Amino acid sequence: MKWCRFQSGDGAAYGIIEDDNVIEVSGSPFSSYERTDNVQPLSAVKLLVPVVPPTFYAAGINFREHVEEMAAKRGEEPQFPPAADVGYRANNALVAEGESIVVPGDAHELLQYEGELVVVIGKQCKKVSEAEALDYVFGYTIGNDVSERVWQRGDRTMWRGKNTDTFKPMGPWIVTDGIDPEDCEVRIVLNGQFISKYNMSGAIFGVRHYISRMSQYLTLYPGDVIWMGTDGAPENMKDGDVINIEIDGIGTLSNPVVWEK
Amino acid sequence: MKWCRFQSGDGAAYGIIEDDNVIEVSGSPFSSYERTDNVQPLSAVKLLVPVVPPTFYAAGINFREHVEEMAAKRGEEPQFPPAADVGYRANNALVAEGESIVVPGDAHELLQYEGELVVVIGKQCKKVSEAEALDYVFGYTIGNDVSERVWQRGDRTMWRGKNTDTFKPMGPWIVTDGIDPEDCEVRIVLNGQFISKYNMSGAIFGVRHYISRMSQYLTLYPGDVIWMGTDGAPENMKDGDVINIEIDGIGTLSNPVVWEK
Repeated sequence: MKWCRFQSGDGAAYGIIEDDNVIEVSGSPFSSYERTDNVQPLSAVKLLVPVVPPTFYAAGINFREHVEEMAAKRGEEPQFPPAADVGYRANNALVAEGESIVVPGDAHELLQYEGELVVVIGKQCKKVSEAEALDYVFGYTIGNDVSERVWQRGDRTMWRGKNTDTFKPMGPWIVTDGIDPEDCEVRIVLNGQFISKYNMSGAIFGVRHYISRMSQYLTLYPGDVIWMGTDGAPENMKDGDVINIEIDGIGTLSNPVVWEK
Repeated sequence: MKWCRFQSGDGAAYGIIEDDNVIEVSGSPFSSYERTDNVQPLSAVKLLVPVVPPTFYAAGINFREHVEEMAAKRGEEPQFPPAADVGYRANNALVAEGESIVVPGDAHELLQYEGELVVVIGKQCKKVSEAEALDYVFGYTIGNDVSERVWQRGDRTMWRGKNTDTFKPMGPWIVTDGIDPEDCEVRIVLNGQFISKYNMSGAIFGVRHYISRMSQYLTLYPGDVIWMGTDGAPENMKDGDVINIEIDGIGTLSNPVVWEK
């Protein structure tokens, strides 16, 4: 199934996407829902962020090539993470498919995309094994972990570098079937030009391992998201760019860049 | 006013505390509400975390003495933060007044309290000045930023050290009036013994500065919380301890420690 969240009247509703139509549901796919009679063409609805997570996790540094290339750019030795430690991002920064990445005027030119697979948790879990970890996944979507590298390195935390308003595009929707989260391809397309690709099989720690390890210490709840990190060394984005992240079986997350004066 | 959140039937309700009674409201103090006829003695209700924040901010290192004493314990030179950078904590870790801090069996003995003033945002704000910052505050409550120092230092992020389930007691309620967030006393009482105290006037960056600076880059939303950091060097807690954090004009947040075998 393909689930979206969209503007319905003054509020937000979940919808099921079938044959390029959106069937509005009452309730939520994370608890219980019923299909309604409200069916609209997908092209006619305003998509929203597909879920507002109770907790917004980010695996961060999780690909060898990303660690090596970023270290090389800084002239440092690569340091690989010894364990699957998860970090956090913030809901204020979320924007939906098509919405602008609005960059503050005092940001530096090292403004970069990070295309990522996003795991959406479906069922509450604590202390689950790697073998059963995927049973607790609702589905998958796409995230762009937009990062301002000067702030990321200079601030004591990642609040500006990663969580400035609009720096976390997520969407366009959640796909529940047919995705192998440890073997799927992520592609970066900037202004219509293919830039790079990587496969989730290159992750240092896989989705099963992350969910299992996290759940030894914390409870994952329905709607929680885990952004799985990115590979490679991203390029800079500038005012007027359009950045697309594509994942096979999910679709394309596309957002324009607007740089404030 | 004094606002709480409590168990009402199978769900959660907000309530106004007056004369040791809780008056249940419909709706929410963060949007609109009406008083209902349901009035119960405060002693008869099960208090819940007073708000589940959309985003859970933590000022972190924000007191000179805390920086100095923690550095001295590690045999290092103190490093003061050059700017008011805010970090994040996670909702999974929240527990209410009276609920247990449950420590995983593999935690180390450096398990410590951090008593903190918590700012609760009342109105959406972006790019506000220090002079107007407090106009966007709904009220104040108390937080205990429980920290396992070996994990805090050894992990790449603070996910286990600070955000293990139950490591973030918050409550008992929110007080909207009569608190000066830049001049109020926080006291630590462990097993009925006074341990230490500090005044918020010792903060490196005050509440007005934090709200104003954060809002230059991000939108604060109703219900967001900012934990303001702690002063001094905490002591260890062990199985069976009861840790109380007291703030004048708010009350006492009290939680027992249960160490898993």
